[in-house]
Amino acid sequence: MISRVLSADLPAHVGERVTIAGWLHRRRELKSVTFLILRDRSGLAQVVLPAGAVVPFGEETVLQIEGLVTSNAQAPGGAELTEPAITQLSGPAEPPPFDLYRPVLAASLPTILDHAPTTLRHPVLRSGFEVAAASVAGFRAALDGLGFTEVHTPKTVGSATESGANVFGLDYFGRPAYLAQSPQFYKQAMVGVFERVYEVGPAFRAEPSDTVRHLAEYTSLDAEFGFITDHFEVMAVLRQVIAGMAASVTERASSAMELLGARVPEVPAQIPHLHFTEALELISSATGEDVTGEPDLAPAHERWLCEWAEREHGSELLYVTGYPLASKPFYTHPDPARPGYSNGFDLLLRGTEIVTGGQRLHRHEDYVEALAARGEPTEPYAGYLQVFEHGMPPHGGWAIGMERWTALLTGAANVRQVTLFPRDLHRLSP
Amino acid sequence: MISRVLSADLPAHVGERVTIAGWLHRRRELKSVTFLILRDRSGLAQVVLPAGAVVPFGEETVLQIEGLVTSNAQAPGGAELTEPAITQLSGPAEPPPFDLYRPVLAASLPTILDHAPTTLRHPVLRSGFEVAAASVAGFRAALDGLGFTEVHTPKTVGSATESGANVFGLDYFGRPAYLAQSPQFYKQAMVGVFERVYEVGPAFRAEPSDTVRHLAEYTSLDAEFGFITDHFEVMAVLRQVIAGMAASVTERASSAMELLGARVPEVPAQIPHLHFTEALELISSATGEDVTGEPDLAPAHERWLCEWAEREHGSELLYVTGYPLASKPFYTHPDPARPGYSNGFDLLLRGTEIVTGGQRLHRHEDYVEALAARGEPTEPYAGYLQVFEHGMPPHGGWAIGMERWTALLTGAANVRQVTLFPRDLHRLSP
Repeated sequence: MISRVLSADLPAHVGERVTIAGWLHRRRELKSVTFLILRDRSGLAQVVLPAGAVVPFGEETVLQIEGLVTSNAQAPGGAELTEPAITQLSGPAEPPPFDLYRPVLAASLPTILDHAPTTLRHPVLRSGFEVAAASVAGFRAALDGLGFTEVHTPKTVGSATESGANVFGLDYFGRPAYLAQSPQFYKQAMVGVFERVYEVGPAFRAEPSDTVRHLAEYTSLDAEFGFITDHFEVMAVLRQVIAGMAASVTERASSAMELLGARVPEVPAQIPHLHFTEALELISSATGEDVTGEPDLAPAHERWLCEWAEREHGSELLYVTGYPLASKPFYTHPDPARPGYSNGFDLLLRGTEIVTGGQRLHRHEDYVEALAARGEPTEPYAGYLQVFEHGMPPHGGWAIGMERWTALLTGAANVRQVTLFPRDLHRLSP
Repeated sequence: MISRVLSADLPAHVGERVTIAGWLHRRRELKSVTFLILRDRSGLAQVVLPAGAVVPFGEETVLQIEGLVTSNAQAPGGAELTEPAITQLSGPAEPPPFDLYRPVLAASLPTILDHAPTTLRHPVLRSGFEVAAASVAGFRAALDGLGFTEVHTPKTVGSATESGANVFGLDYFGRPAYLAQSPQFYKQAMVGVFERVYEVGPAFRAEPSDTVRHLAEYTSLDAEFGFITDHFEVMAVLRQVIAGMAASVTERASSAMELLGARVPEVPAQIPHLHFTEALELISSATGEDVTGEPDLAPAHERWLCEWAEREHGSELLYVTGYPLASKPFYTHPDPARPGYSNGFDLLLRGTEIVTGGQRLHRHEDYVEALAARGEPTEPYAGYLQVFEHGMPPHGGWAIGMERWTALLTGAANVRQVTLFPRDLHRLSP
C-alpha cells in the first residue's frame, strides 16, 4: 500500500515528513507563492511551492507528494505541506471538461450527466451519494436490529404480472422474459420462510414519461414482514426505519449535508396520519375546490398536505392511509371496516410521496376473489398465488425509492442529480 | 403487532401464559397425547393437546396459540405450551407438496426449485440463505471499516463491451440495450470519486453452459480501490474481507451451519500464494503430466492446488497470482517484471475459484495500447476510456460470487441449492 496520510489527518502530523496522495484539485499561482490544492477522499490539502515554480501537471492529475507538515491557520484544517517532493501517478491526457474546483459546477444537467465519471468528483455532486450510502446503511441497521433477514431476489422474471405496460422485455436464451418492476412477489414469498425480510436492489420501470422524479432504473429499499394485525404496524416499523436512516445520515454524512446546505428531517415519535377521505375533505374545505370524489392524490394535494402537517403537527412527515382499493394493486388488503378503501398507505416527506406500503392479502381465496373483482383471470398469476396455498400469515411491507429519498433530503430538484448513472427514456449511458 | 413470544424464548417464560405464532410444522398424534409442533423464525415449539384431540389444521397452516409455558426436558429448549387456545390465521388451501418436517426433504433438485416458495421453508434449505445473509453483512462491515463507500450502479447498459457473446439483450424504449455482466467500468470510475467503493448487486451472464456452478443471474460482491502499488495489496485487503465474512457467519449463522453439518473455513493471517507458473510446475512434477504450457487452470488443477495448500500450509484458501495476460480481460495490469503475465489473481477455496481480482490499468495510453495489442478498436470503448483521460490512480479490486461462496461454505453440491430463485439456461421461474 502507498503509505499515505489522508488530507483530513494532516493537522495531527505537524512537524513530521509525510506522504499524501490524490488529485490535483487546483493550482494557484500567486505573486509570492504557488499553491497546489490536492483532493483525496477525506478532503483538500494545501501544498506550498516557491513563487514562480513551474507546475507541469494539469488539474485532475494524480500526484503523490512527500513533504513537511507545517502549521498555517489559513490552510484547510490549519496545516499545509511544505518542501514538497512530487511524484506523478497518472497523466491526465486531457484537461477536465469543467473547473471542478469552483464551488458550483457551471454546466447544465445533461452535460453533467454525459461526463458523470468526471463531474461526480466535484465535492458538491459527490456529497449526494454520501447521503445515499448513509441512508442505505441506516435502513439495513434498523431492520437488522428488528430481526429481519436480507434477501437477493431475481431481476429477470418469466412473467410481467404486476403491470404489463411499463415493463422491459428481454431475450432470455430465445424466450421472452422481463425485468422485475419490484421484488413484490418474492418478498411476500420470503415472509413464509423468514417472517421478516428486506432487500436493497434495482427495480426497472419502462416509464415513457420524462419527469424530474421518475427513473427507468432505481434502487428500491424493500421490506416485508408477517404476523401483523393491520397496516398501522407496518407504519410503526417504517417510522423506526426512517428514524434510523435520518440518524445514519446525521452520523455518517453530516459534512456532505452541510456542503449541500441541506437539513436532515426530524422524525417525530409519532408521524401524524390522515385517512385518505379526511385528507380530501381538508383540502376541499381549505381550497374551496371539491376534490372529495378524486380517486388519488395529485402532486399539488401532497404538497398542500405536507404544509398542513408542518403547520398543525410540526412534522415534515405525514402518513396518508386508506387509499381507495381501486387505485391500489390487487394484492392490497381491504379495510374490513370501510368497503372500497384499503389498508394501504403512503408516506409523504416535504411535499412528495417517498414510500408506498400497506397490508397485503394473505389468504389464497382472497387473491382469487380480488382478481375476479377486477375481471382478471387467475391463470397468469399461478406462480404468484402458489405460496398462498400453503399458509401465509397476515403481512405487509413497503418500498422506498432510494434516489427520491436522497433528492428530498439533499434538496435536489431532479432525482437524476442524486443517481450515479441515471437511466430514462433518453439516457442509457455512460 | 400480534404480541407474541418467539419459540426460542419460551424457556424464559415458564409459568406464564403467552401467545406464540407460526406455521404448523407437524402433528404428532400419540396414544396418550397429541403434539403440535409450531415453527417460527426462531425455531420450533411444542404444544400439548389432550389425547384424541381433533386437529382440524393441515401442516403449514398459520396459527396463533395462547397457552401456559411449562417445563419439559423432552420438549425443544426444555419448555412447551400447555392448555392451548388456538386461533387460525390462514388456511392452507392445499396440503404442502412435501413433508417439510422430515430431516431431509425427499425431492429432486428441480422439484425443490419448482416449489421454492414452499420448500425454502424447510429448516435445512433455509439455513443456506442465513449463511449468505451473514456473509454479505460481513463483507459490508469489513469494507465500511476500511473507509469504502457503497455504490449502486446501473444494470441496464448501452454497450456490451466486456464480452459480447454471453450478454442478455434488452428492448430499451425501442433501442438495443444489455444487462450488465459486472459493474467493472462503473466501480473503476467510482475510484476516481470515492477512492474506495463496493457494491452488492445482480450480475447477468447469458451462459449457455449448464453446470453446477454457473447461474445466468447471480449476486456479485464487488470492491475496487485506488492508491495501491500492486495486486498484493488488493489481496491483503481481500484477506481482511474474507476473514470478516467468515467471522460474520460464525457470529450470525452458527446454528444454520450446524444444521447443515458445515464448518466455517479458518482464514490464516497470511493466505499462501503461488505464481501461476509455479502452480503449473508443481502440478506437472507431482502428476507427471506436463501442463506448463497451459493458458489457464483446469478445475482438476484447482482441486489439486487446494489439496497442496492444505497439506503444505494447513490452509483451505490459496491465492494463485500472475495469470497469463492473454487469459485475462483487457483492463488487467501487466506484471512489469514478467512480460506476458499479469497482476491478476484468483482466490481458491476448497478446490474452487471463488474470487477473481487484480490490479487494473490506470493510464489512458495503456488502455489504448492494450486494445491495439488485442487487435480491438478503441471506438466501442469510448465511454469506458473517458474516465482515464482525467487522472486515475493505480487501482485494483475483485468480484466474489455470493452463491458460489455460500455453496462452498455450506457444502452444497450445486450452486442452485443456495440461490433463492435460480436462473439458468432452462429456468426462469418461479
